[in-house]
Amino acid sequence: MDDTRDIEALIDLMARLPGLGPRSARRAVLALLKKRGQLMAPLAQAMANVALNARDCMVCGNIGTSELCPICADPARATGEICVVEDVADLWAMERGQAFKGRYHVLGGTLSALDSVGPDELGIPRLVARVASEGTREVILALNATVDGQTTAHYIADALAGSAAQITSLAQGVPVGGELDYLDDGTIGAALRARRRF
Amino acid sequence: MDDTRDIEALIDLMARLPGLGPRSARRAVLALLKKRGQLMAPLAQAMANVALNARDCMVCGNIGTSELCPICADPARATGEICVVEDVADLWAMERGQAFKGRYHVLGGTLSALDSVGPDELGIPRLVARVASEGTREVILALNATVDGQTTAHYIADALAGSAAQITSLAQGVPVGGELDYLDDGTIGAALRARRRF
Ligand SMILES: [Zn+2]
Ligand SMILES: [Zn+2]
Repeated sequence: MDDTRDIEALIDLMARLPGLGPRSARRAVLALLKKRGQLMAPLAQAMANVALNARDCMVCGNIGTSELCPICADPARATGEICVVEDVADLWAMERGQAFKGRYHVLGGTLSALDSVGPDELGIPRLVARVASEGTREVILALNATVDGQTTAHYIADALAGSAAQITSLAQGVPVGGELDYLDDGTIGAALRARRRF
Repeated sequence: MDDTRDIEALIDLMARLPGLGPRSARRAVLALLKKRGQLMAPLAQAMANVALNARDCMVCGNIGTSELCPICADPARATGEICVVEDVADLWAMERGQAFKGRYHVLGGTLSALDSVGPDELGIPRLVARVASEGTREVILALNATVDGQTTAHYIADALAGSAAQITSLAQGVPVGGELDYLDDGTIGAALRARRRF
């Protein structure tokens, strides 16, 4: 076995992670080499374990290890509300906020003619069927405030126009602790238009 | 199996890598989850492979997969020159410079009273014995231009004072306070060619 090639192969794979370039991947691998027993072996094991067992929830698209993710399998989560997010990172962010007690629909992206991502790829027909069969009262569109995100939100709202569910979206405005001076113009404009009585 | 716990455990381990905090570790794990087949499984395999097979070269301290690293095992590498570096990252940086054709001694750190790192921990007696037995003509001290690096360089020069080897150090080109691993290849090559008597 060519040992330099093995280590180089590991560095190349690490460099494909977001936030790591070739140099930081090299430093990460060196740190792993120095802690082969305490860190590298357990990390390899944890990664193999998740790679083997992770699967997409058949209902909502969240990642778990069973057909149903822990949220869909939790009887304490309200079934009347579905929060639509672009990807699992956004679901995790919502969960960290601890404000939402309903269930999710993970799109896995946004509509994009360029990348040939249509409604089927995002599971939108499945969402529409779910809203009808579960008697969903409210669908919260928690998509990113980008052009693609908002285009997709409008498409979903149209697709659900015939349902009994109320369609809402996250409020736009000044983030908690946010300073006006650091906000972009669009956010300030949105916050102004949605101003409330003090 | 609690799937959220498995993924959280993986994020915690990733967050212990240099350059990755909790947030970037989460993003990295999400990217891995999205590419379970193409990236996550091969990365876990490559990491397990290196963790299992990597070992320190018994002669120079470089990391390889045999008792002798590829450099020590290579008959084309000159035996008359030994380049002393602080750690494997610096050896890799020297090799990328492609200017040095001899062999190495990897200290694995610098002398430090604070951390109880003495000459034995750095293999300095082993280096002195090696210089005598191999009839080394030149020992190049390629330590970082930091206080600890230069203190260690002086200690090694003193320890080798009785040997027949000429002691040199890398020349101008290494900035004050600079670390080898962050230098570009050309700078390392220039510093090596202009090396001076220590
Ligand atoms: Zn689910
Ligand atoms: Zn070696």
